[in-house]
Order: sequence, then structure tokens, then C-alpha cells
Amino acid sequence: MAKTVITISREFGSGGRTIAKMAAERLGYAFYDKALVERVAKESGYSYDFVEQHGEDANSTSSFLFNLARSGSGAYEGMPGISDKLYVIQHNVIRDIAEEGPCIIVGHCSDYILGDCENALHVFIHADKEFKADRIVKLYGESEVAPEKRLYEKDKKRKVYYKNYTGRTWGSAFNYDLCLNSGKLGIDNCVDIICDMALHS
Amino acid sequence: MAKTVITISREFGSGGRTIAKMAAERLGYAFYDKALVERVAKESGYSYDFVEQHGEDANSTSSFLFNLARSGSGAYEGMPGISDKLYVIQHNVIRDIAEEGPCIIVGHCSDYILGDCENALHVFIHADKEFKADRIVKLYGESEVAPEKRLYEKDKKRKVYYKNYTGRTWGSAFNYDLCLNSGKLGIDNCVDIICDMALHS
Repeated sequence: MAKTVITISREFGSGGRTIAKMAAERLGYAFYDKALVERVAKESGYSYDFVEQHGEDANSTSSFLFNLARSGSGAYEGMPGISDKLYVIQHNVIRDIAEEGPCIIVGHCSDYILGDCENALHVFIHADKEFKADRIVKLYGESEVAPEKRLYEKDKKRKVYYKNYTGRTWGSAFNYDLCLNSGKLGIDNCVDIICDMALHS
Repeated sequence: MAKTVITISREFGSGGRTIAKMAAERLGYAFYDKALVERVAKESGYSYDFVEQHGEDANSTSSFLFNLARSGSGAYEGMPGISDKLYVIQHNVIRDIAEEGPCIIVGHCSDYILGDCENALHVFIHADKEFKADRIVKLYGESEVAPEKRLYEKDKKRKVYYKNYTGRTWGSAFNYDLCLNSGKLGIDNCVDIICDMALHS
């Protein structure tokens, strides 16, 4: 069965977004990265910037719930907050997108949200620190913060967000059908494997 | 750079061993599964059966150390036991094999032991429970123990063994270059991807 819904989770700096975009172009699938944020912003009434900032990364300023979750209590059922509201809207938007036609969705717990989708392929892209550090400096420029720290902080937030809303461990191979080390395999090979498996698995 | 050393870690029942054997045949690489156990048996003086039973799976009867590690103390440095002796011999044999020529090595923490090997490709094969349960019943027959329990117990032992000797989490995508869901992608596709990445990444 061709895989017409592809979710791509990725470490910051691994090239996951680029790989997703290239694969979407080659397969002729709709590409949901910024387009997902735009749609969630429209549905929720929050601004694009707000959704971008709080829709995928745990942020202690966004919700009391993350502090609770970080403290290990995990007891946030029945205590709705902004992050939770945003998560529910994102969840529904992602389910809708998967129904609409062939697509590639980047991040936002989409692997978990579409875990029961039979025609989905779930991908995780990671790379070693040197590859990612070089890449973020080339793409986003230097900063006062060392590249290694920027990588660590971004991925830590994604990891906490993912754990909070899915209960699963971000980057555990068991959550995905394909995990690829883009630094070792190369960006083009990752695109080839994803497209090939979308069409022939 | 062609990858002339491939390590394949696998869940029980995922077809990882079969995939490794098919890839070794296609690439013309030496295949180390039983051959590794034989070599460790020869080097250590222990029997083949003993090495097979204790060389990859944590077993509470084999060493006091595993009980310590399971209890969370992790303090087994400086307290040599049979399992530790076997691990050291296995470690050295695996390093030797990687020096000798192109090869595929199945399990035994080989991804960790050869983590610094530049021409290595580290692979993890997993699959969903139904696929694995069907496969072990077809390959090894029925048993008094339910397939799900056989899967759980075998992989739990591998996971504990891996954690004890590497300090890492078995099945975390970050330990491997390629993680493949053989149930979703199919055995033949897994072989194709591994061979392709061995030659062209």
C-alpha cells in the first residue's frame, strides 16, 4: 500500500525540514511545516508567532502544566491551559490534513496523532552534533549562544513537549518506521529512502 | 566512503537476523551471528551453548552483577564475574573481526563496541508485536508460553544486557544510523536499504 501520509520528526539542525520539503516536491505531496502553523493559527485565533513558539516546544512561560509535568507529577488532566488548547486544535488540524490527500507533515507530534493511520509512514531524522552545529550556523548565522547550546535547548523543549502530550520518548526507534542519521547517510539519500518507501512499501 | 562494517541489532522476531544474512550474501561480506558465538567460545574456553545463553542476554543466574545492575546500583566496576569476562572477550573478538575485512555482525552490543569505526553502518531492526509473534511461531513453533510473553522476555533481557554494558538505551534512534520497521517496510526493502547505504553513503 502506498504511503500517502508521511510524518517527519527531526532533531534541530539535522536537515529534517529540508528533507521533508524535497520529498514532498518529488512525490507531489502537500507540504505542512509553516502551512500547518498558519492553519492552526487560523483555527485557534492565536497569532502565527504564538503558535510557532508554543505549538511544538515546551515553554515554561506558556503553561503552568509544563512546570507540573517537569516536576514529574504529570497530573495535568482536567486542568486546561493555553498549551493544552493549542494541542487539541493542532491534533484536529493534523487529523483533517491527513484526510484531505497525500501530504508530508513536519513535527508537532504528528507521528503520534496519526499513529493509527494505515497509509502513513513515520520518519525520524537525527544527526551527530558536529553536523547539526555546522548546519545551524550556515542556515541561521552565528549567535551569542554557542551552537551546541542552541541545539541542546531546542531539542530539550521538543522532547519535553512530546513526552507531555504523547507519554512516549522522543527519538525512540519504536515510534517510527524509519529513523535516519542524515549526517552519516547524507540528505539526498534520506530523501531517496523516504520517497522509495512511500511508493514501494 | 563505503561502509564495510555493518552492525545489525534487532528485536526478537523482527527478522533482523534474516535481513543481516541476506545483506551479507548480497554484499559478499562475512556474516557473524553463530560464527561470532563460535569464535567467542573458542577464545574464552566456554561452550558454544554457554556463550549463546550468556553473551547477549542479561540472565540473573549468570552473574551477581546483573542483580546489582537491576537493583539500580550499577556499581559493578572492579567486581569481575563470568558475564563481565565474557563481555570483554566478545568486545575484543568484535574489534578483531571489524579489522579483518568487510562483515556484518548481529547484536552483542556491536554498535556500541564499534561506535568509533568510521566505515561502519549501525542498523536497528524492529517491528510491531503481531508481525513478530507470527514470525516466531512460524520459525520456532508453538510453545507453552504465549508468543507475546516470549517476545517480551527475550527483548527485556537484551535491553538490560545492553544497558549494563553500554549505559545506553536499547532501541534509541540516536545509537544507530538506520532504524527500520521490518513489519511495515518488508524484509526485502530492509535488505535493499542496508545494501544501498553500505555502498553509497
